[in-house]
Amino acid sequence: MKKPIEFYFDFVSPYAYIASEWVEALAARHARTVNWHAILLGATFQAAELKSPVSHPLKREYSLRDFQRSARFEGVPYVMPEAFLVSSMLAARVFWWLNDSRGPAAASAWARAGLRARFTRRVAIDDPVALKALAEEVGLDVAQAEAAWGDPQWKARLKRANDEAIAAGVFGSPFFLLDGEPFWGNDRKAQIERWLSQGPF
Amino acid sequence: MKKPIEFYFDFVSPYAYIASEWVEALAARHARTVNWHAILLGATFQAAELKSPVSHPLKREYSLRDFQRSARFEGVPYVMPEAFLVSSMLAARVFWWLNDSRGPAAASAWARAGLRARFTRRVAIDDPVALKALAEEVGLDVAQAEAAWGDPQWKARLKRANDEAIAAGVFGSPFFLLDGEPFWGNDRKAQIERWLSQGPF
Repeated sequence: MKKPIEFYFDFVSPYAYIASEWVEALAARHARTVNWHAILLGATFQAAELKSPVSHPLKREYSLRDFQRSARFEGVPYVMPEAFLVSSMLAARVFWWLNDSRGPAAASAWARAGLRARFTRRVAIDDPVALKALAEEVGLDVAQAEAAWGDPQWKARLKRANDEAIAAGVFGSPFFLLDGEPFWGNDRKAQIERWLSQGPF
Repeated sequence: MKKPIEFYFDFVSPYAYIASEWVEALAARHARTVNWHAILLGATFQAAELKSPVSHPLKREYSLRDFQRSARFEGVPYVMPEAFLVSSMLAARVFWWLNDSRGPAAASAWARAGLRARFTRRVAIDDPVALKALAEEVGLDVAQAEAAWGDPQWKARLKRANDEAIAAGVFGSPFFLLDGEPFWGNDRKAQIERWLSQGPF
């Protein structure tokens, strides 16, 4: 039995959004499944002493352009969000609540809905009101979702996910572990595809 | 007449080395030429408030692995250099001396020789003795090369190249400007190829 692709993402990451649109289909073509892991870039950036690409002069302007171009390159719709440096903490806690109580399929459906909402409809993923509206839209119990994101159990679960990701070497989003091999970035798609087709190269 | 591809590189950059092995052939297939620009990442990093990928925890280990894997992916030989955080100042001044006094072909031949020496034979590009040996090997007048890298004229020429690159938005290596469109990284090869084939996308 082939190992699943471990897929780490932050709801605020444009490149994770793009990758989230191809990772399941690519995995399926190679008889693999995908384990989704919601993480916070704030935690991995701290561990790796990094900042967001949009926090750097010159790189900011390039990145805003490249997010859109890379989405077009993959044929994925993209609308620039209103803000980049926002926290996906609440959305990520809902992810882990769903993952552990309803199963991975419910969690990854929430992940895809959240990423699409942020990057195609400018939904403010950090805003509790917008997040409740999104939860309702995708058929979650809104009161339960809100309770989950305030619950110490799911705060701790997200913290554990971040700690485990960092321990596994994850420092960015999207990040993939494939048979233990690390791949960082939407732009490693071709290398991942070769690995899936031919094995280690 | 189609515009040349503006190709910015630092002699110490592994991804620039990999890209230097495909950029000419790719350009030629699309009836383009390549304008090579030797720059110093030290200057662009300062402008963009960045550090080398190997200076960050977690990212360092990944990058050392990814340099090699990305070279294998492109079918390019790669031997890890002894050190990453070294200065290519002398080699870059020789580049601009050759560019302005012998022409771009002499400069790009030096660039390719320097990159290959560093990344396939562990030649210490920052060491004057090793650099003189390399100059001799590729048929340059060694005394002239040494005089050039100590000459204020070529110091100033390199500084101007860095300033112009930064003014054009360059913050890393390799960096490409293609019809004014910026592409950063060896991993933008597929996007560059699409642009060359189909124009803007």
